[in-house]
Amino acid sequence: MFKGLSAFPLTPASADGVVDTDALQQLTARLVPHPVTSIGLLGSTGTYAYLTRAERRRAVAAAVEVLAGKVPLIVGVGAMRTDEAVALAQDAAAEGADAVLMAPVSYTPLTQDEAFGHYRAVTAAAGLPMCVYNNPGTTHFTFSEALVQRLAEVDGIAAVKMPLPADGDFAGEIAQLGRDGFEIGYSADWGIANALLGGAGSFYSAVAGTLPKQVTALSSAALAGDEAAARAEDDKLAELWALCKARGSVRVMHAAATQIGLIDTPLPLPLLPLETGEQDALAVILEQIDATV
Amino acid sequence: MFKGLSAFPLTPASADGVVDTDALQQLTARLVPHPVTSIGLLGSTGTYAYLTRAERRRAVAAAVEVLAGKVPLIVGVGAMRTDEAVALAQDAAAEGADAVLMAPVSYTPLTQDEAFGHYRAVTAAAGLPMCVYNNPGTTHFTFSEALVQRLAEVDGIAAVKMPLPADGDFAGEIAQLGRDGFEIGYSADWGIANALLGGAGSFYSAVAGTLPKQVTALSSAALAGDEAAARAEDDKLAELWALCKARGSVRVMHAAATQIGLIDTPLPLPLLPLETGEQDALAVILEQIDATV
Repeated sequence: MFKGLSAFPLTPASADGVVDTDALQQLTARLVPHPVTSIGLLGSTGTYAYLTRAERRRAVAAAVEVLAGKVPLIVGVGAMRTDEAVALAQDAAAEGADAVLMAPVSYTPLTQDEAFGHYRAVTAAAGLPMCVYNNPGTTHFTFSEALVQRLAEVDGIAAVKMPLPADGDFAGEIAQLGRDGFEIGYSADWGIANALLGGAGSFYSAVAGTLPKQVTALSSAALAGDEAAARAEDDKLAELWALCKARGSVRVMHAAATQIGLIDTPLPLPLLPLETGEQDALAVILEQIDATV
Repeated sequence: MFKGLSAFPLTPASADGVVDTDALQQLTARLVPHPVTSIGLLGSTGTYAYLTRAERRRAVAAAVEVLAGKVPLIVGVGAMRTDEAVALAQDAAAEGADAVLMAPVSYTPLTQDEAFGHYRAVTAAAGLPMCVYNNPGTTHFTFSEALVQRLAEVDGIAAVKMPLPADGDFAGEIAQLGRDGFEIGYSADWGIANALLGGAGSFYSAVAGTLPKQVTALSSAALAGDEAAARAEDDKLAELWALCKARGSVRVMHAAATQIGLIDTPLPLPLLPLETGEQDALAVILEQIDATV
């Protein structure tokens, strides 16, 4: 489940935060025919941080129903309080999720020990494999190497989703951190080619949740070790990567899914849609990569 | 209301997040005899980010009741979603708060325009003066100078609570940002002496919420321009400032209030109490500054 490409769909929801389960089921179902090894519901791109516990549970139930076991479902259970994250993890398990994913969301910056205690408590309560979501871009929490190694020893913690290494040395980091039963994967879509060609066995993709055909063409080539084909697919997506890097994948994928006609719900305020010029540039990109339905 | 010293009490709450309103009223009432010009409820030290809307409303009602108008009450209304922050601000107004304070809490990093829209919407809905809570240590949001100036022009936005300036130039920053009807204040308690002696007319103190006597001895001297007395009071608190800087004021004030016997509730997990050695060091400090009851 923690190998290969994990695709993270948006969670369409009304302005007041009610999940559009029909649209969510359609977004989820259209990922199934593609070579994705798991679906990551309620990740950063799935705006989990903006949804209530009840709505998050409704989203999990809808995804489980439409997937019907065809692709494993990983569910984001991050929350500020440990008891709330525990409850979210138990909800995900009760609804039939296959694994949980959690970022160390915080207000008061957490110590390494506080983050460890949080992961241990939630993993024990979930009764499902846990993927540690190391996402300093949103949480501003820095995992020490010692903390990742300590977490890897916890019963139930099965994987980590890492940010792209600053020095680009995927193989070195994987050799350092990986172990039996603890899989090292990466995220930030512009790094897919380098990560998978550089030795990573898994990638967590925000863009694949909305554009599965284009991203899996790249990831499948890279996972097969076909560098020329992977680089060619990566080149096609260069402008999309640049836009995601500049404006955040959640805003760009929301705009893409809206343009393609997959959703008609807003981003949660205070998040604003792309501006007109950016929307126009995105429309050109989507046509170039044959993404418009 | 936005001049002088604002004291931020803890919000005592049970392990599952139910506010102990009796203890909160006692914490709040013991601030009144001291020269504090406002009380800042549900700030970072008041762990607002870990409490539900219903519990935050109960806390406001309890504080309003015990204050009975003797000292103005500023209430923190920060939340991830704009509609939630609007609801919190309306709750605070309905319960009788005098002003609101809001940090740009985020998950997806906000743009300057997104933060502006968030403040404009919440201020309009509150119908109370708004203090912009510029707290990059918790929110990781960076206000541009242009954004602060733009916010200062919004009807209802009356003050900003700034982090300590990196170059220590309080007077220069105040001259740059301040204007009629828009007050520049600071926070991070180890900067009280330098800020108030350096030209700031207001300070937002986490430590004064638990140790009002010791902090107002310093702030009153500094506000009166008595540098020798202010420096002498500041020196007495040097070890406390160092501990707050190292471990976060919320953990240190929680430990102090527990040792003094003001509260018997835990920090919200995942936050952990100070370790034994730190508790012991704090006990010595509290005795030295005559804080133990």
